Amino acid sequence: MAAVGLVEIKAAAQRIGSHVHRTPVLQSSALDLLSGKELYFKCENFQKTGSFKARGALNAIKCSLEAGVVPPMVVTHSSGNHGQAVAWASKQLALPCTVVVPEGTPVAKCEAIRGYGAELVFCTPTPTGRKETADKIAAETNGIIIHPYDNYNVIAGQGTIGLELLEEVPDLDLILVPVSGGGMTSGIALAAKHLNPNCQVVAVEPQGKQLKQSLQQKERLWPNPPQFLNTMAEGIKTQQVGLLTFPILCDLVAEVVTVSDQEMAEGCRLIAERMKLVVEASSGASLAAALTAKVKEMPGKKVGIILCGGNLDLDKLPWQHFQ
Amino acid sequence: MAAVGLVEIKAAAQRIGSHVHRTPVLQSSALDLLSGKELYFKCENFQKTGSFKARGALNAIKCSLEAGVVPPMVVTHSSGNHGQAVAWASKQLALPCTVVVPEGTPVAKCEAIRGYGAELVFCTPTPTGRKETADKIAAETNGIIIHPYDNYNVIAGQGTIGLELLEEVPDLDLILVPVSGGGMTSGIALAAKHLNPNCQVVAVEPQGKQLKQSLQQKERLWPNPPQFLNTMAEGIKTQQVGLLTFPILCDLVAEVVTVSDQEMAEGCRLIAERMKLVVEASSGASLAAALTAKVKEMPGKKVGIILCGGNLDLDKLPWQHFQ
Repeated sequence: MAAVGLVEIKAAAQRIGSHVHRTPVLQSSALDLLSGKELYFKCENFQKTGSFKARGALNAIKCSLEAGVVPPMVVTHSSGNHGQAVAWASKQLALPCTVVVPEGTPVAKCEAIRGYGAELVFCTPTPTGRKETADKIAAETNGIIIHPYDNYNVIAGQGTIGLELLEEVPDLDLILVPVSGGGMTSGIALAAKHLNPNCQVVAVEPQGKQLKQSLQQKERLWPNPPQFLNTMAEGIKTQQVGLLTFPILCDLVAEVVTVSDQEMAEGCRLIAERMKLVVEASSGASLAAALTAKVKEMPGKKVGIILCGGNLDLDKLPWQHFQ
Repeated sequence: MAAVGLVEIKAAAQRIGSHVHRTPVLQSSALDLLSGKELYFKCENFQKTGSFKARGALNAIKCSLEAGVVPPMVVTHSSGNHGQAVAWASKQLALPCTVVVPEGTPVAKCEAIRGYGAELVFCTPTPTGRKETADKIAAETNGIIIHPYDNYNVIAGQGTIGLELLEEVPDLDLILVPVSGGGMTSGIALAAKHLNPNCQVVAVEPQGKQLKQSLQQKERLWPNPPQFLNTMAEGIKTQQVGLLTFPILCDLVAEVVTVSDQEMAEGCRLIAERMKLVVEASSGASLAAALTAKVKEMPGKKVGIILCGGNLDLDKLPWQHFQ
């Protein structure tokens, strides 16, 4: 845990600051009324590449360069936001990049990654298939793998979200963070621990993840091999959190809130209607959590809501799956 | 024309400043690339009530109060953004309000107006039917009618958009403004004339409006009675511009650009995809205009794009009409 403290998060902010946006923190009186809290939305949907992932990816690659390693290839596996982010970050640093994506990935996503100049390699669509293919390419090219969350420099990069949010609203009582592998949740929780120890970090999960049981027992209770959950929220479909992130989450996550796909979709719709923002399903999950009885009953008034990204299928918006 | 100058626009800004948002001006490198210009998006989709109309409505009602008239009723006719804006502005000032809407107006729009505490009265769905019903109610209640554009105080209120935009980007070469009755276009053009006479104001119209012919001949060539155009862009479906706005537009509009519904829809989609913003079809029209050969060939690099509002049917987004 000592591997990422406030020093590392502030160093990450310094390192990536000239490339990424300091995203705005927006409010909505209509949504305050609906939730009974004061909501502060951190708009990572406006971030470079359309999601927060740009922060961690760029920090990790720049750390490698600072350590004197100029990788002949930057490699990762992700068809989604992390894939785009690593491709984008590599381009910023003029490094070649290969992104492993599962067969059947929509053309639009492949084009987005190629748009940043990365090469695509297809693999079997399972967590294990992805990892093996990425490992092989890294070995062959003598490249570095940028893991989406099990990497302390990625965690420190995502921690800059918490740093910025708490600089803007220092007395937040809660922060609602959609959780997948746990990189963003860990980073934000570490920032909060140092900047405002009274601020509770709540992990927001899709149905079936069952994070709470594992955190409570401090034991990885998930079935293996790792699975994807059956959720519309692409960004948070990984069931297991990481090996590096797990102990951080055990230590620092105050509560876990589970939301259904329909609740996430309704969250996205409310954000479009009331805030005029396009956000992806995992961002809708953050607002959905604020509207649950569990969060409404938690003490404290000021709630940070992480709108983690805005990349989604515009032909069928989240709420249109339930019409 | 002398009725609205920079003094009146600055007074309007002062009058409404504590109630309305100073909306942000956003940029998008992807859309700059697509247009070949530097685009500055004035985000009135973030404005109170979801459109710029809040500015003019509030200014007009406050001017009436300042003149010593406390109206027993504030009346207007509009099922759309102006109706919501007048209802909202009346509520800010604790005045009763009646909004005349055409029969067949979608329930969601009626609810939005009622949500601001206004009473609804239904009328036959023609421009003439609206006006007659509103006139009758105003006469019966001794109320004041807030016209959506043919009112100098409304024009001055909308002019504050131009004031803010040119304060932020003083050296704009062009501003693209979606035109309906011409209140916003007049207001912005008047602000530009005083703040940067080199900045050209371009009116963006839907097909069938034929504004250019009337402006060139300085003669109202439109058929009577006034008609609505067959366009998806609710906000700009009025064919004729106003009697007060017409001479201002004749004098100050440098160019008219016509865009199809499909181009507007594509504009909305690009704004959702690249900027993560929800905007209505008339706002999509502004970006669509920037992508026409006519605007690309106009001299000057810095282009203001008015995103006039973000109120739309989320069940069927503009681009989904063409799938």
